[in-house]
Amino acid sequence: MKLDPSVYVLIDPDQTFGHEPVALARAAAQSGATLIQLRDKRGAIRPAIELARAMTAALAPLGVPLLVNDRVDVAMAAGADGVHLGQDDMDPATARRLLGPRAIIGQTVKTAAHVAALPPGAVDYAAVGGVFATLSKNNPEPPLGLAGLALRIAALKARKAGLPVVAIAGIDAGNAGDVIRAGADGVAVISAVAKAADPAAAVAAIRQAVDKAVEEARGAR
Amino acid sequence: MKLDPSVYVLIDPDQTFGHEPVALARAAAQSGATLIQLRDKRGAIRPAIELARAMTAALAPLGVPLLVNDRVDVAMAAGADGVHLGQDDMDPATARRLLGPRAIIGQTVKTAAHVAALPPGAVDYAAVGGVFATLSKNNPEPPLGLAGLALRIAALKARKAGLPVVAIAGIDAGNAGDVIRAGADGVAVISAVAKAADPAAAVAAIRQAVDKAVEEARGAR
Repeated sequence: MKLDPSVYVLIDPDQTFGHEPVALARAAAQSGATLIQLRDKRGAIRPAIELARAMTAALAPLGVPLLVNDRVDVAMAAGADGVHLGQDDMDPATARRLLGPRAIIGQTVKTAAHVAALPPGAVDYAAVGGVFATLSKNNPEPPLGLAGLALRIAALKARKAGLPVVAIAGIDAGNAGDVIRAGADGVAVISAVAKAADPAAAVAAIRQAVDKAVEEARGAR
Repeated sequence: MKLDPSVYVLIDPDQTFGHEPVALARAAAQSGATLIQLRDKRGAIRPAIELARAMTAALAPLGVPLLVNDRVDVAMAAGADGVHLGQDDMDPATARRLLGPRAIIGQTVKTAAHVAALPPGAVDYAAVGGVFATLSKNNPEPPLGLAGLALRIAALKARKAGLPVVAIAGIDAGNAGDVIRAGADGVAVISAVAKAADPAAAVAAIRQAVDKAVEEARGAR
């Protein structure tokens, strides 16, 4: 499936705040999410495969790809559309070899060395974390903030022109436009959707904020 | 590669007692081991892939297959010959689909329900654990003993005729013959090799004990 990382919704089965994970994925995809990630940190592979299969089945008719966090084996077993890899997961070149040319592969990049190490053609997008303070993850470093994010993205794009960059951590409808204006091609969100009483409305609001910032950026060019 | 599970040596990088794991695998294969398993419980995938790659490269020229414990992704990334799966790992039918018809896939079976659930054609051998007391694993249940093992194997073969069965836990050169006489097609060993000052000699002694028991069994028929 084609990659559009503009509104990227991560779903963690341990952090759905009462929402059923597959229903959450479906609601997000129907409300403007362009990419869904299953971020399953429970550790057991059989339930992870089962959930990834159910999400893939729910999302395929909607044309929204499902990526699996960390685990290439779970993605392959479930027939998901790709993976998102951290720096400690399988290296992207090996993952590309196993998943094939049509899979979507993203990687978290934290340092200039990570950017330099991105293997040509293996990665379809890069993710920059720690933008704002977040409840979903323990980040030891202070948040980048918007100026820090802008510099990080500019440095990344200077090295890898054309590589889409998504930003993550503490993003919601209120700051998503700022993140796009800082140079991100997409916003990745977890709590802003999962914690919402109406996740579909939360995704729609983020979608609207992103679209508005993208249009402004087009108008300014 | 062809499966011969008669002398099956498991190598755990955390339990090599000072031996270098790749050298240990090579010495075992050169001294009569017919199958090697990398049992890497360290948890990090990159070092696991690296070690599995090094072992595969060392063993391929010797014609001895390398199986990876638990992780189908590590086996695929390293180009290993197959996997050994526990009951909580990826289900064998899915692993077979991902690894292809030529891969060797083994599974640990503990109960009659596990045996009944073995998917046709997916598994090349079954492993029965808990034979004797072992230092390599915390087994909550009391050891099967030789009589218990014989009954377990007979029950397994009654349901799945022709499926090779290997036994594991506390096996060494001193009791390997008894294990074969109890009906096992092979003995799986960890400490008996890794803890030996001369692992090659330990494997050769196990090989000899297994061969002797197999010959006796042939003579008795």
